[in-house]
Amino acid sequence: MRTSIADPRDPRLDDVRDLNKSDKSGEGLVIAEGPLVVSRLAQSRFSLRCVVGFGPKLDSYVEQYGDPGCPLYEVEREVLAQVAGFDMHRGLVAAADRAPEPELSSVLEEATTLVVLEGVGDHENIGAIFRNAAGMDVDAVLLGSGAADPLYRRSVRVSMGHALRLPFAHLEGGHTTWQRSLERLRSAGFRLVSLTPDESAVHLAEAMRGADKVALLVGAEGPGLTEHAMRATDVRARIPMAAGTDSLNVATSAAIAFYERQRSRTAFAAREM
Amino acid sequence: MRTSIADPRDPRLDDVRDLNKSDKSGEGLVIAEGPLVVSRLAQSRFSLRCVVGFGPKLDSYVEQYGDPGCPLYEVEREVLAQVAGFDMHRGLVAAADRAPEPELSSVLEEATTLVVLEGVGDHENIGAIFRNAAGMDVDAVLLGSGAADPLYRRSVRVSMGHALRLPFAHLEGGHTTWQRSLERLRSAGFRLVSLTPDESAVHLAEAMRGADKVALLVGAEGPGLTEHAMRATDVRARIPMAAGTDSLNVATSAAIAFYERQRSRTAFAAREM
Repeated sequence: MRTSIADPRDPRLDDVRDLNKSDKSGEGLVIAEGPLVVSRLAQSRFSLRCVVGFGPKLDSYVEQYGDPGCPLYEVEREVLAQVAGFDMHRGLVAAADRAPEPELSSVLEEATTLVVLEGVGDHENIGAIFRNAAGMDVDAVLLGSGAADPLYRRSVRVSMGHALRLPFAHLEGGHTTWQRSLERLRSAGFRLVSLTPDESAVHLAEAMRGADKVALLVGAEGPGLTEHAMRATDVRARIPMAAGTDSLNVATSAAIAFYERQRSRTAFAAREM
Repeated sequence: MRTSIADPRDPRLDDVRDLNKSDKSGEGLVIAEGPLVVSRLAQSRFSLRCVVGFGPKLDSYVEQYGDPGCPLYEVEREVLAQVAGFDMHRGLVAAADRAPEPELSSVLEEATTLVVLEGVGDHENIGAIFRNAAGMDVDAVLLGSGAADPLYRRSVRVSMGHALRLPFAHLEGGHTTWQRSLERLRSAGFRLVSLTPDESAVHLAEAMRGADKVALLVGAEGPGLTEHAMRATDVRARIPMAAGTDSLNVATSAAIAFYERQRSRTAFAAREM
């Protein structure tokens, strides 16, 4: 169902109104920008409410990804700029309803590689972690205390839409509950590996070797993981760093760990490396 | 030599004037912000011209890193905000003169691991590549055609100041000259490894195995390396990606390759992995 809308005050455009001031999470919405991310929203567990875009952008979206099965609102560039609050040069934006988070038990059921985040409060870092996790076969993201919202507009954009597809669930957060919440992962067969720049930790490759299931814990840039969280894990792993340098960005460290996990579990690695 | 300056129009503050509008490269300057990056500028090949900051920030800088041996200008927060053009909450900024780039031959002399960039035009990506390279023992960065300026203010900041310390040099760029410029690296003993998402490429670990010296080529996010550049290399390497995902961010891919290089060359890796 496609409709042209010329009046920026039209309430049918409210789902994408004032995006410069809000990510719409307060209204229970998820926002996707650009054709690729909109297509991932359309394939996700979230129900699309509308797709808004310039005429040619709607045409090429439908041609490439098919009819999304929700109202399509065609608008001029100036109208969208007025509604969204900025010039949206990608020319395509969609809104969907947020959905309840999956149960931890259902997330754990099929998973063999997890990443667990403690205090990663930056939306770009969260988004980048989802992008890297999806790219390197991590099955789900678990959010401990202090993690930013993966469905925040900026997180979704940086994740290239993978925050909409890759399952995530919250763990009972807080310092006193790490022991208990990580015990659930351990009893589900996961080796718990914490990532730290500490030189006394073992090499990442050694920490992962031979593990059937791995849950990798990473902490916020700067402080890193708390001692509470690390003490609740099975092994502390490090990425060797050159003298006089700083630890890596948290999403970069996580990407390296995902790569190592993939490398150590493939038959190729087992035979050849 | 420490002087208080109360007048934002004082010409001694010109080196850090209008930073919101310019990175000062047009004036032949390099700018460093915050104590850590300023300390790296002080230890670099660039000659410091001045350090400007709030009183307590200058105190703690000198206490931690010593006297930088250039004029120190103490200013109030409002004065620095007026001069720089924005509220500089870090409260410390330094300027240095740009210096001639090192000769390629001197860069190659001691190096065993290089990264070569083609068309990486984004200042954040360039900065992140320098940060990751410094952290994982890459000896130098070579810039082919289309690479952004590593000494741009934003690049320096994202690099955590490593763009000031890690040697870099430009290669004769352009599509027609890759063959010739890479030949210089090959004859210096480097194995030339290009990074590509192409599934027919060999695994990164296999591409690096047994190499004494490695030069790793990475291309811009999106287009990646040109066929010209790849054809001039010895081996095409890939980071295995999950189906239906996108290639990684260029700085993230490079970080993974640096990790693999470090892993494959250490005795630890040779014995244990």
